[in-house]
Amino acid sequence: MTSNAARVLAHPSREEIRVEGVLHALSDPVRLRIVRHLATAADELACSRFELPVSKSTSTHHFRVLRESGVISQFYRGTAKLSCVRAEDLDTLFPGLLDSVLGAAALQAERLGKS
Amino acid sequence: MTSNAARVLAHPSREEIRVEGVLHALSDPVRLRIVRHLATAADELACSRFELPVSKSTSTHHFRVLRESGVISQFYRGTAKLSCVRAEDLDTLFPGLLDSVLGAAALQAERLGKS
Repeated sequence: MTSNAARVLAHPSREEIRVEGVLHALSDPVRLRIVRHLATAADELACSRFELPVSKSTSTHHFRVLRESGVISQFYRGTAKLSCVRAEDLDTLFPGLLDSVLGAAALQAERLGKS
Repeated sequence: MTSNAARVLAHPSREEIRVEGVLHALSDPVRLRIVRHLATAADELACSRFELPVSKSTSTHHFRVLRESGVISQFYRGTAKLSCVRAEDLDTLFPGLLDSVLGAAALQAERLGKS
């Protein structure tokens, strides 16, 4: 039990999430890419499934920023660390914000010829 | 004419505005406050009309970040530096993004008991 408890990652409660922190978390290209990927996934994704143009430690940092700002939740299943977007929390606090950011990112990617 | 030309401030063209830069600019509480104020103003506002809890140089820095990210435009009228939100550019590039950020900020301010 102790070892499992130690592997539970800290998350802000819904009430602790701040719009400034969410915007900061989403203002980095790599983090925005992670969230776009997670938002289109049917279920939670393992961190290791992301192919990111950064080192493992940088990737871990980006996931931590997303988690600590309340944009994603992360939990362990066996040895895999899984992530998913806190869409319900975000939509309750800030209706339409996540969708408009994802929409803006998609439009920009299309405009610049990137996926 | 030369002295006037030297006082024209550099702005990104609409095509140069990036969603990451806009989100970064809006992720700071003071900058978000400036933009909320500008967005509700009937016309452009002078920087000196803002009462901000920061020094003049910090305030100038925040306005520059907003301008260089494409969130606001700034221009001189006489000795006053005026600012306004680039709402049309932002809405064309990223439909609904600015409104959802402003809406989220307003909801949060209401929830936390701040204006």
